[in-house]
Amino acid sequence: MRIRVVGVGMGPQHVTAEAAEAIRSCDYVIAASKNDADGLLAVRRSIAASYGVEVVAVPDPPRERDDPADYPGAVRDWHAARVAAYDTVLRERGGTAGFLVWGDPSTYDSTIRIVESLGIDFDVVPGISAPQLLAARHRIVLHGVGQPVHVTTARRLQDDVAAGQTNLVVMLSRTLDLTGLDDWSIWWGANLGTDSEELLAGRIADVVDSLEPARERARDAAGWVMDVCLLRAPA
Amino acid sequence: MRIRVVGVGMGPQHVTAEAAEAIRSCDYVIAASKNDADGLLAVRRSIAASYGVEVVAVPDPPRERDDPADYPGAVRDWHAARVAAYDTVLRERGGTAGFLVWGDPSTYDSTIRIVESLGIDFDVVPGISAPQLLAARHRIVLHGVGQPVHVTTARRLQDDVAAGQTNLVVMLSRTLDLTGLDDWSIWWGANLGTDSEELLAGRIADVVDSLEPARERARDAAGWVMDVCLLRAPA
Ligand SMILES: C[S@@+](CC[C@H](N)C(=O)[O-])C[C@H]1O[C@@H](n2cnc3c(N)ncnc32)[C@H](O)[C@@H]1O
Ligand SMILES: C[S@@+](CC[C@H](N)C(=O)[O-])C[C@H]1O[C@@H](n2cnc3c(N)ncnc32)[C@H](O)[C@@H]1O
Repeated sequence: MRIRVVGVGMGPQHVTAEAAEAIRSCDYVIAASKNDADGLLAVRRSIAASYGVEVVAVPDPPRERDDPADYPGAVRDWHAARVAAYDTVLRERGGTAGFLVWGDPSTYDSTIRIVESLGIDFDVVPGISAPQLLAARHRIVLHGVGQPVHVTTARRLQDDVAAGQTNLVVMLSRTLDLTGLDDWSIWWGANLGTDSEELLAGRIADVVDSLEPARERARDAAGWVMDVCLLRAPA
Repeated sequence: MRIRVVGVGMGPQHVTAEAAEAIRSCDYVIAASKNDADGLLAVRRSIAASYGVEVVAVPDPPRERDDPADYPGAVRDWHAARVAAYDTVLRERGGTAGFLVWGDPSTYDSTIRIVESLGIDFDVVPGISAPQLLAARHRIVLHGVGQPVHVTTARRLQDDVAAGQTNLVVMLSRTLDLTGLDDWSIWWGANLGTDSEELLAGRIADVVDSLEPARERARDAAGWVMDVCLLRAPA
């Protein structure tokens, strides 16, 4: 029994040669089915289908969505429930199972942690991440020459800015608090790489009122929305 | 006239479906030829050849390598010289030119800045970056659950640690100063994705003496060495 964790980027256009080979080597692929992002399941299903591999959808256990006081604890419980769900399917089927990961498995994704808990041998194939596609669409480098980029979450944004960060990629943003950043620049994208892609860039004060409408357009078009941005302090 | 900036990851295995299509759409691809990394030129050459596209190698202008006092200024001069070299080739040939970028164009790469200076219409296709391959090889996520990752350079490492960073990806490391980080963990890789790949991981005090020999093995095998690492403070 063996597991291959395969990053597929934001869709079939991002599948690398080695990811394609890895998918072909699988007897089946497992896909988490999330209520809020069934569009993503459809994409993974079509990727697997294009390589002639069966997709086994395992429903995600319900997750506390409203900022629980004990956030790491809530994530841990949710992982344990997912592990149990996968374990059942894998022991039943055996063989080589693929986990298709949206974007890259190294960035804000729980697949590696879940697969580790299964105690089954696995390898990892990298994929194109949302920040990389954001940068490509805006045709930017994610940092100044020789400067760092701080990749963080919307939840932590204001703390990281208070601690002195001036160049940040912000992920997992259901709500983006841009208070105090009027003169900063933003490069923003939602549903990147899909038909419902939305892009915005500019001085934050100038574009902030356009963000929510653009987010809603993406959600209306796709039935789900995910966005990511780069924020940079004035020079 | 048009330019396509195409990330090719760490070799042909990382070429995505859209990168392959972009390369095929080019009349020729331009590759910078660096004295210290001719192996990389060979890889790009073979990628272009596998899509039947001619490679035009443009020698890199010489660059001040020894930590000049005015680092940004030195980089600027070097860019101006590269722009002039490319400009000549592009105006002479016309058509659609591809720039194959090692890794991802959004991360510690000057191609976008150079192409912008040319004043020719261009688009960008993302590629797998070195930190992503590092994470895949070590089968890790680059950050704790909900935590940030600070992507920086070896030159800035000690300052960023002093400023409170506890989870850092370190790039551009000709010399890695790990002073004071004995109890931290390191996940390190050199020449990732190539035949001369080297990997190391562990508590820094335990593996620090193995780093330089591993780096030298990679250099001996390939004729060049590039390394990247993730550093994390003890919990
Ligand atoms: C659970 S994380 C997964 C990240 C993924 N592993 C990656 O490498 O990009 C989900 C977050 O990634 C970002 N994201 C993922 N897909 C996106 C897309 N198509 N467009 C914009 N942002 C996206 C958003 O910030 C979203 O909240
Ligand atoms: C000029 S930067 C280019 C980075 C590239 N654009 C990317 O996306 O990975 C060169 C640095 O990237 C890292 N790097 C590039 N290729 C690498 C490889 N094959 N193995 C390890 N590190 C690599 C090293 O830190 C090196 O100093």
